[in-house]
Amino acid sequence: MSQIPAQHYRIVFQPSGRNGAVAAGISILEAARQLGVGIEALCGGQEICGKCLVKVEQGSFPKFNVVSSLEHASPLSIQEQRWLERRNFGAEMRLACAARVQGDLLVSVPAASQAQKQVVRKTASEKIFDLEPAVRLVCLHLDPAQMDDRSDVERVSAELAQRFALENVEFDLPVINALPAAIKQGKGDLTLTIWRERQIIRVQGGAYDRPLGLAVDVGTTTIAAYLCDLRTGELLATAAGMNPQVSFGDDIMSRISFAVENKDGVERLHNAVIEAVSALGQQAAQEIGVDAVEIVDCTLVGNSVMHHLLLGINPGPLGQIPFTPVVGSSLDLRAAELGLRFNPGARVHVLPLEAGYVGADNVGVILAEAPHRQDEITLIVDVGTNGELVLGNRERLVCTSSPTGPAFEGAQITNGMRAAAGAIERVRIDPQSLDLRYKVIGSDLWSDTAPAGSLAVRGICGSGILEAVAEMFAAGIILPNGRMNKNCASARLTRLPNGQNAFVLAAAEETLSGEPVVLTQADVRAVQLAKAALFTAAQFLMKELGVDHVDRVLLAGAFGSYLDQRRAMQIGMIPDCDLERVSAVGNAAGDGARIALLNVSERREAQRLARWAEHVTTPLEGEFQQEFVAALAFPHASLQFPHVEQYLPEKA
Amino acid sequence: MSQIPAQHYRIVFQPSGRNGAVAAGISILEAARQLGVGIEALCGGQEICGKCLVKVEQGSFPKFNVVSSLEHASPLSIQEQRWLERRNFGAEMRLACAARVQGDLLVSVPAASQAQKQVVRKTASEKIFDLEPAVRLVCLHLDPAQMDDRSDVERVSAELAQRFALENVEFDLPVINALPAAIKQGKGDLTLTIWRERQIIRVQGGAYDRPLGLAVDVGTTTIAAYLCDLRTGELLATAAGMNPQVSFGDDIMSRISFAVENKDGVERLHNAVIEAVSALGQQAAQEIGVDAVEIVDCTLVGNSVMHHLLLGINPGPLGQIPFTPVVGSSLDLRAAELGLRFNPGARVHVLPLEAGYVGADNVGVILAEAPHRQDEITLIVDVGTNGELVLGNRERLVCTSSPTGPAFEGAQITNGMRAAAGAIERVRIDPQSLDLRYKVIGSDLWSDTAPAGSLAVRGICGSGILEAVAEMFAAGIILPNGRMNKNCASARLTRLPNGQNAFVLAAAEETLSGEPVVLTQADVRAVQLAKAALFTAAQFLMKELGVDHVDRVLLAGAFGSYLDQRRAMQIGMIPDCDLERVSAVGNAAGDGARIALLNVSERREAQRLARWAEHVTTPLEGEFQQEFVAALAFPHASLQFPHVEQYLPEKA
Repeated sequence: MSQIPAQHYRIVFQPSGRNGAVAAGISILEAARQLGVGIEALCGGQEICGKCLVKVEQGSFPKFNVVSSLEHASPLSIQEQRWLERRNFGAEMRLACAARVQGDLLVSVPAASQAQKQVVRKTASEKIFDLEPAVRLVCLHLDPAQMDDRSDVERVSAELAQRFALENVEFDLPVINALPAAIKQGKGDLTLTIWRERQIIRVQGGAYDRPLGLAVDVGTTTIAAYLCDLRTGELLATAAGMNPQVSFGDDIMSRISFAVENKDGVERLHNAVIEAVSALGQQAAQEIGVDAVEIVDCTLVGNSVMHHLLLGINPGPLGQIPFTPVVGSSLDLRAAELGLRFNPGARVHVLPLEAGYVGADNVGVILAEAPHRQDEITLIVDVGTNGELVLGNRERLVCTSSPTGPAFEGAQITNGMRAAAGAIERVRIDPQSLDLRYKVIGSDLWSDTAPAGSLAVRGICGSGILEAVAEMFAAGIILPNGRMNKNCASARLTRLPNGQNAFVLAAAEETLSGEPVVLTQADVRAVQLAKAALFTAAQFLMKELGVDHVDRVLLAGAFGSYLDQRRAMQIGMIPDCDLERVSAVGNAAGDGARIALLNVSERREAQRLARWAEHVTTPLEGEFQQEFVAALAFPHASLQFPHVEQYLPEKA
Repeated sequence: MSQIPAQHYRIVFQPSGRNGAVAAGISILEAARQLGVGIEALCGGQEICGKCLVKVEQGSFPKFNVVSSLEHASPLSIQEQRWLERRNFGAEMRLACAARVQGDLLVSVPAASQAQKQVVRKTASEKIFDLEPAVRLVCLHLDPAQMDDRSDVERVSAELAQRFALENVEFDLPVINALPAAIKQGKGDLTLTIWRERQIIRVQGGAYDRPLGLAVDVGTTTIAAYLCDLRTGELLATAAGMNPQVSFGDDIMSRISFAVENKDGVERLHNAVIEAVSALGQQAAQEIGVDAVEIVDCTLVGNSVMHHLLLGINPGPLGQIPFTPVVGSSLDLRAAELGLRFNPGARVHVLPLEAGYVGADNVGVILAEAPHRQDEITLIVDVGTNGELVLGNRERLVCTSSPTGPAFEGAQITNGMRAAAGAIERVRIDPQSLDLRYKVIGSDLWSDTAPAGSLAVRGICGSGILEAVAEMFAAGIILPNGRMNKNCASARLTRLPNGQNAFVLAAAEETLSGEPVVLTQADVRAVQLAKAALFTAAQFLMKELGVDHVDRVLLAGAFGSYLDQRRAMQIGMIPDCDLERVSAVGNAAGDGARIALLNVSERREAQRLARWAEHVTTPLEGEFQQEFVAALAFPHASLQFPHVEQYLPEKA
């Protein structure tokens, strides 16, 4: 069959199709290594972890000149047999580390057993990156100790050196403490969790295969957490919630004031956010049926003030000239140092700040969207209570921050709420009939097709607020100056008991509370202030970079639902741009945190980017103040927006 | 005057005599560097620390062909002048970093300003080693931050890289937190405490120059702590106390039992010893007028059980076959991880174990006495509740442990006490007249010359107990089998109310309590058991090494007072040896801890020695048991001791 000398056999691996001659008697795992086929082997070939499970195909495969059969692999070892039987695998399934080559073979490697996984992020700038996590698992086996054996720690170290070529690995003290019980419990089988190939941070008796990591974006108003499998890169669960610091102040300036003016201010703010991040980790873990103790690595991004408070550092210096942060470079810490209730040995990587007011969240945005790898001039607007903007390309990146306020996160809006079930996320108003319909999170139906009262509206989230204002403006319900149009015929215009004008989005009978969900004149004002702040900051960056237009715009933010790009331009939140080149990219800061969680090279890249990107301080007076006032109008007091002209109301 | 080209001047440094031509205008500090003269410069030449204080000599020095004068150095800088005036130094004293060479100079470098200090240990094997501590101080100055400056941490990092060539130094989180206040308090002057040239563990505003370290020997019964100046190597204070674990069990086996049999046993034992070590650190610090917060580095030695309990590790495995320790290699930890109340950033280095029952204390003994650097066969007997013995030379070292019991530490002895004021430490009995005299710690007078009652005896410590038994045996008051001799005419022999025979060392009127201080028959039995255990273990090691005699014997132990070598041999505690080759070396384990505290190369050497020395397990039955019984007699049931024959009582 084979033209290869007798002591060699031909072996083919699928789906890669890699094949070649290998020496008789070597394991299928070793054959794969020789042919450059990546097969998982957490335990280093000790028949413990089962990660190298493969299928031996049977029959003739002329394409590869191979006749493969089960007998061409060595008989089952006792340990392998026990492993396979316990899981009810058929005779064709083998552990690649145990089965030896005794004839020609065609071997299929299931996706789960393939090493060198890659992760695809599904955003506008689709990006594939290698999985290179800071934390990985290693399984090994210790024989019972003998009289002249060295200590347990030294026996584990010897195994790590011999089987995994890991030298000088150190042990966290609690790991040392837990070692004897783990050895006993696992009958010698151990799973070690290793950080950066140099520190053992956890030990478990037995074989485990799913190290969990949590990427967290801590916003001024909203916290978003992403639970990932560090071995596969898979996103397992997402959890989001309000930043409880909101009760100490709505924006970063008021948080700084609270920290500076109260004796235990820093401590209370720190404890509140740490408690919230811990709880989100626990919530995400529970969603997949495990406990937060399984979380062994974590990345954190946030604006400069959130960053300092996460670390328990007084943000006072960020509140006064010259706005120097206490620490800006990235940090590797133990989760327990911050008080995070994950695994006791869990590590935390805090992404670097760019400058006093351009934070680690912005570094995350750049990491995720990579404007520095493009020729085109990209504008990224990260909409949050503290908005952050980046502009530029591979030549130069400039960035700044903008005190947007929490309107687009649903806070400080009469019926505003976080993006959650029951929140209005989409709004459409017919400019002719003024008929209104909406969609709420949790239902696929628009309000005009859903059974009456079935949507149980609870409020309106950021994307809904933006759309409502844009549609009201397009339909002439609000005027360019933001005032409700008294001459408008809509029956939804009303006056609240407090005398304020309001617009009814959902009538009392459509809501959960039995009260109507409205947008008030004050709510529209909050949107005006927010969009003007973002627009003016973008203008300022364009001036700084010396460009009069941008090639593309990315809208980012932790809204849950994506912002509608056309309507964002319609109200003058972003500069004019070809609508096809405007994308909503979701929570890019969170994406950046997730990339850093899964790849240590990207952590180094983040540190480099934080130094390379130029921070410019938006002036607070003079020309800027005038431009801000002009930007308050819908879409703007003087500038043209040719790309959305057709959607704007006719000039009065 | 000088034959050197005009732009160079001749400079001479004393006391080294090093001299040469240097370029005009360079600082005296730079000149010293060029000529290989080590001058301290904590602040890297910023006129802050004052460590580089030197004296400019005046007059003609023909030997060096130099005429030196104050004018040959540049005028005082404002900062230098302020520094010198505040300390009332005369015009001839200069900061070497500030004063520039403007003519020929002869400069004297005071001892305090000399770098590269060496430490001389004053023990039998006098040893000089370089000072190479794990922790050192660095002083630097930060100018006020500007608008475009990076963070405080990055500004400090830049200074460290530029002035001290320290790259990639990381900061403990609490240091980051404390940075803004320290910068403010020191008006930009900072003192950083750096561990292993790579981690900042403390920051202080202003200039400081005395980093403190604590070397601790944790014995089963006694804990000894040594407070050192890490910059000079000087021993500043010593503190010793009982190990409070004594209340949970007298020896290591009973400590293990307590740990294993009680739910919170490990925790209680751990907390007790940590509390005691913290308290001794505080006590030693207070002795020199500072607080334990000044302690920034610590080394710990102890037998294997003490070692595990210090780390909070269950010592259970040490109590059962195969006696495998959980961890044996040396460990670098944060003091706070163990609960030690030193500086919050203080580090701890735990010396390695040799094996299940030969601990880090024995590694300390080897480090201090260096038998592995000798040709002669050395026996080191470290007398403690858990005695440890080492035998060998540069070819091979064998070691073992021996359950001595606490008799030589004054515990479980009727009037036994720790070596402290009021303890009888020396005893002499005239073999003819049977007259007895003693000396107590705290007085230079023997009891027969001190005014009656002035010594206020409180009890008897280990060295006193050994001498009392040896003298009583030599005088025939106790018989070779250990029994009190009924036929002896001493009036000091008495019978206690409980029916036990006893010997009065100090009468009621000589003691503080008004009760006599005695040695009972049971006390003598405890000494017999202890000395027989040590002797048999020594015999066993000699057999293992294949030698029938030893060239020298070192007696070590944390007694406070040195053990009397002749009397130790007289009672058969150590093998026969030329008395001139028997030395008492004090607490060698503590000396080893001190060496490791002051020199990181010696820490590596300790790790190597722990692996190289061979551990042999003393058998617990058969031949060994018989030899133990024979060794119970004074000096021994069958062996001869030619070197102390003359001091032994005539055979009956």
